[in-house]
Amino acid sequence: MTQAPPLLNDGTRVRDGMPTLGPAATRLIEQLDQVFVGWAADSGAAAMTLPPMQNVADLATLDVYQNFPHLAMVAATLDTGHLPEAKPRQIDPSSLQAAGIGLPSAVCYGFYLHLRGRTLPDRTVLTAMGTCFRNENHFDGLRRLRVFRLREVVALGQPDEIRQHLSRFTALSFRFAEAADLDVTHAAASDPFFDQNSQQAYWQQLNPIKHEFLFGDLAIASVNEHRKFFGERCAISLESGGPVSTGCVGFGLERWVQALMERYRGDWDAAYAAVEAGRVATAESELQRQATKVG
Amino acid sequence: MTQAPPLLNDGTRVRDGMPTLGPAATRLIEQLDQVFVGWAADSGAAAMTLPPMQNVADLATLDVYQNFPHLAMVAATLDTGHLPEAKPRQIDPSSLQAAGIGLPSAVCYGFYLHLRGRTLPDRTVLTAMGTCFRNENHFDGLRRLRVFRLREVVALGQPDEIRQHLSRFTALSFRFAEAADLDVTHAAASDPFFDQNSQQAYWQQLNPIKHEFLFGDLAIASVNEHRKFFGERCAISLESGGPVSTGCVGFGLERWVQALMERYRGDWDAAYAAVEAGRVATAESELQRQATKVG
Repeated sequence: MTQAPPLLNDGTRVRDGMPTLGPAATRLIEQLDQVFVGWAADSGAAAMTLPPMQNVADLATLDVYQNFPHLAMVAATLDTGHLPEAKPRQIDPSSLQAAGIGLPSAVCYGFYLHLRGRTLPDRTVLTAMGTCFRNENHFDGLRRLRVFRLREVVALGQPDEIRQHLSRFTALSFRFAEAADLDVTHAAASDPFFDQNSQQAYWQQLNPIKHEFLFGDLAIASVNEHRKFFGERCAISLESGGPVSTGCVGFGLERWVQALMERYRGDWDAAYAAVEAGRVATAESELQRQATKVG
Repeated sequence: MTQAPPLLNDGTRVRDGMPTLGPAATRLIEQLDQVFVGWAADSGAAAMTLPPMQNVADLATLDVYQNFPHLAMVAATLDTGHLPEAKPRQIDPSSLQAAGIGLPSAVCYGFYLHLRGRTLPDRTVLTAMGTCFRNENHFDGLRRLRVFRLREVVALGQPDEIRQHLSRFTALSFRFAEAADLDVTHAAASDPFFDQNSQQAYWQQLNPIKHEFLFGDLAIASVNEHRKFFGERCAISLESGGPVSTGCVGFGLERWVQALMERYRGDWDAAYAAVEAGRVATAESELQRQATKVG
């Protein structure tokens, strides 16, 4: 099923949850990403590139097949002893080999797996724009995709440093949305990451660890506090002892395009101008923050 | 198996053919891609974004499961009625559902599938940087990866326009390599795309339709003439009648990093300077070309 998202007139089409973006949407995502990567650079983040695949055994240590089996996709190779017909519509499991490679549903897993067994200082900030795969039970234009891109900015270190990182990106996101005249709300969200009967889930009810920025009912960014979960699972230690805490901010790039197109009724130039206004406003607020610190 | 590619000291690691790039390699790829995308823009290309997934039924119309079954990977979902153990090392085919989504081995397939049934003028140039997946029989650092990024610049239209496009990018690539002091050779390559017993393969022997730029034995770019293959398979027509011809140039970004690091013995600043020299030289040659045209 192919659909053109409403208001996108640049050739953008979504087929079965897989987007092909036209020139105007491609440019808008690059412009948005430059803003987010600028905030990351101002935070001292190192910009890395994570692969859109990880070993199943590695993803399993992060409980993804326990917590999200319905969302999971794996990369399977063909059993060349049982080749499918020349023009298959789908590949039957009997023609597949056992799959040792998974397609991750979030970008930041790659950071924790990359840093396994390492010892870090009180504060490390990393960023990457990566590809995420989710087998949702329905797809809806750019609002809900099978494959999409996320810019994540992750902090690892002492709990206080993580909270400061998340507060700072929350403030920047609000300031940006205000300057871009995007009406967003900020809401606590239930993170399905932890077993709902676990102690983690109990604590989460008392003290939410996931917040979302919503444009209408569309979550365009999320702010996630993982506490020591990834530090423990990946044996990433603080120099001062114990596992690192982690937290991440994620910006769903295709959803930002959707939000901007809804707000600006399909006017690309207005959307570019709004993002530029947001960039300037957050660059200024960054300067003010630094001036306040010095003053 | 995790390995750090020789000469890359920025934290870049490759695990089972899946690369995590450190900050210096991430920056070098961005810089290289900006050069290639600049050439594409000078050619009047529209920059689009293609999904790293396509329907199996669509890829099958391009013969990928006939010609490259050993390279193919598909995205399979879990059969939640047969859930794997909580921490699987791999997912057995008995726990997988039939796979309707494929992971493409080249970027440009996405353009032809997107343009199915369309009628185009004598010359259309498109570009995208995308992700490719190949189940190779061995992996080797950044030289041979399971998942990698390719910047492709594709022309669709009259055969003469395709040949001009490919000649122009061949000349730009040589000029760039010379200015960057990268010793590359240009060689005809056998394209496994067509059935080796077919008439296409016969013609290919007489008149090669794939050329590669080699740094030592490493193919860092390829120039491919597809004649009317994709135009016919995807029913993309010329306004003047008949199927379009197509041709593409592809730059393997991680392989360029490998080539530059070998040439500059791991000195990132020397590599950045070489790419900048190449950019300037090809911007100049572009200006000369236009001056000659006008003069």
